[in-house]
Amino acid sequence: MSSVRLEKLFTEMVKTGLDGLALNPGPSLTYMTGLKFHLMERPVVMLFAPGNSPAIVLPELESAKLSTLSYPVQPFPYGENPDEWDASFAKAVKALGLKGKKIGVEPGCIRLLEFGYVRKGAPDADFPDSGKVVGSLRLHKDAGEAAAMRRAVDVAQRALEVVILQIRIGMTEREVAAELVVQLLRHGSAPEMSFSPIVSSGPNSANPHASPSERKLQHGDLLVVDWGAVVDGYLSDLTRTFAVGEVDPEYKKIHQIVLEANQAGRVAARPGRACAEVDQAARKVIEKAGYGRYFFHRTGHGIGMESHEEPYIRGDNMQLMEPGMAFTVEPGIYLTNRNGVRIEDDMLITENGAECLSDMVRELRVIG
Amino acid sequence: MSSVRLEKLFTEMVKTGLDGLALNPGPSLTYMTGLKFHLMERPVVMLFAPGNSPAIVLPELESAKLSTLSYPVQPFPYGENPDEWDASFAKAVKALGLKGKKIGVEPGCIRLLEFGYVRKGAPDADFPDSGKVVGSLRLHKDAGEAAAMRRAVDVAQRALEVVILQIRIGMTEREVAAELVVQLLRHGSAPEMSFSPIVSSGPNSANPHASPSERKLQHGDLLVVDWGAVVDGYLSDLTRTFAVGEVDPEYKKIHQIVLEANQAGRVAARPGRACAEVDQAARKVIEKAGYGRYFFHRTGHGIGMESHEEPYIRGDNMQLMEPGMAFTVEPGIYLTNRNGVRIEDDMLITENGAECLSDMVRELRVIG
Repeated sequence: MSSVRLEKLFTEMVKTGLDGLALNPGPSLTYMTGLKFHLMERPVVMLFAPGNSPAIVLPELESAKLSTLSYPVQPFPYGENPDEWDASFAKAVKALGLKGKKIGVEPGCIRLLEFGYVRKGAPDADFPDSGKVVGSLRLHKDAGEAAAMRRAVDVAQRALEVVILQIRIGMTEREVAAELVVQLLRHGSAPEMSFSPIVSSGPNSANPHASPSERKLQHGDLLVVDWGAVVDGYLSDLTRTFAVGEVDPEYKKIHQIVLEANQAGRVAARPGRACAEVDQAARKVIEKAGYGRYFFHRTGHGIGMESHEEPYIRGDNMQLMEPGMAFTVEPGIYLTNRNGVRIEDDMLITENGAECLSDMVRELRVIG
Repeated sequence: MSSVRLEKLFTEMVKTGLDGLALNPGPSLTYMTGLKFHLMERPVVMLFAPGNSPAIVLPELESAKLSTLSYPVQPFPYGENPDEWDASFAKAVKALGLKGKKIGVEPGCIRLLEFGYVRKGAPDADFPDSGKVVGSLRLHKDAGEAAAMRRAVDVAQRALEVVILQIRIGMTEREVAAELVVQLLRHGSAPEMSFSPIVSSGPNSANPHASPSERKLQHGDLLVVDWGAVVDGYLSDLTRTFAVGEVDPEYKKIHQIVLEANQAGRVAARPGRACAEVDQAARKVIEKAGYGRYFFHRTGHGIGMESHEEPYIRGDNMQLMEPGMAFTVEPGIYLTNRNGVRIEDDMLITENGAECLSDMVRELRVIG
């Protein structure tokens, strides 16, 4: 698998005029190698150059990990003393002949720490923003990746169904979130959760990026649960909104509007259309209902190894949808200081249309 | 709390000659504000300048979070369209008069993404490595931070005691790790785990940075469990090594040596001594026993909000230990391709000596 990806990467690098590419620990490095490293004070960087075995600079005590690679690499390990680290970077740059060349970096992943070492090792090089190079490979999910995403959706849905049975009035948002994480793990999500669930109730549900708080669930609340699982390195990212007992009639109304917006967005997803059309389809439903100003975020974002990646489902993104692209559709209405609703599903573009990976009931369920 | 930290930060910035400091989401920003943001494709940066209300650039839809701050800030929110983001950064830099000034950054935290926006907003500024500025505040844990770390140790120890009862020959490392995460959460660890447990058995235990694999526990294995909990944003980081049934006599011997090295390291921890002395004390035990070349990493690292922070317990670190510093003591012996041992405890330097936060049995326990 990974050596196929290496060939594809080289092709993409040649196409974009890159002599080299520097990746630090993160999803793109894992995609290219299967390797995982913690981001820490010790820099780890892998350098790619078309036609060469990649070079990797890493702490000596991490070298054993390289034995799992499916293609040869040139290791440049360093010891505990930071004074030696520069030398390892310089050697790696030299091994690939990258001095003074064009070495792409991913600004959304590489820290100034790793970048500083690479730049010192290749002082006259150019470092163009190359976030889209591995990104263009990752953008089209292959059959194995799609299968992992389906499992991640399945694990997430089954875990929440168990938690729903346990939710009671008086539980805190944090208790619900903790129980959800436990059930995600029990159902097979990887122990390293890439994002923790949002569980927001009452006025907190009107904040799309709330963190679970000590607020207790009350009769009349809307309850937004935005959660996902990780299976074989791939994510799901879903949202459902529940009613805690009997809720304000306006809350039922906005839930119905969001549900229709979610459906309109999903229906608009197919190859050859622009991402913007999905956003516009969902947004139009909410605007027509008179709640346009309460839907103040984009309709979705790509998912895969990361919870936010390309393609972005924004009204101004004219990128065309292509088979293998995966993204969320997640319209919402947020009545600030009152309550909010969001309904989110995961879509995968196919040859002829789109597959909705998630099928959990979207209608407003009463719990507690 | 946070406004006291703000005054301390300003004092430290004046002392180090900084006009400004740019923090992106991460432990230092959380330390200064109590706020948490996900690292994503949308940049979030808070700018500090002594004597001014800090300025923060962030997505509009995250602005609600600012209401929890204990001191006033100047918000510069931006919308969904990335073309507008530069303008928000430029305004924030202007509001604090930081054009052409000295703006510190944390290379181990800030990505090229955020750094690029700050640099564009302040094109003639200098950006010195200022990782030690907030770092110097975070280096000395106050009573509240120490209490959180004690709770994080307690949660971790109680969780592992439950898991030990469930470990059986034939379980995979991954199964043990998943169960440990479940128990950590049930015992009160925060849902966002900052690092996932290392559970490594047999030959894998000889790799200090192994990831849990599908390897099944076998009779005769050593089993290394390196784990921790997160309570109120503070970590514990511990390691114990177990025997699965009857093990090779040499494994028992190296376990005893590591245990004595761990104790020697802990005893050497006290204010006024160099961090190097802790490393040397632990290392000497292992070297004397003839296993020096099998202990190829430093003896420990600081802990707090991060699993690796200052002070580093390296043989060449002459930094003096001071009250409030917290770090691990974790010597190990790794017989490559055979088995390995590590025993790790968390220490807190006090006025007169050091407190060992962890007290779980260190002797070789037989399980499975």
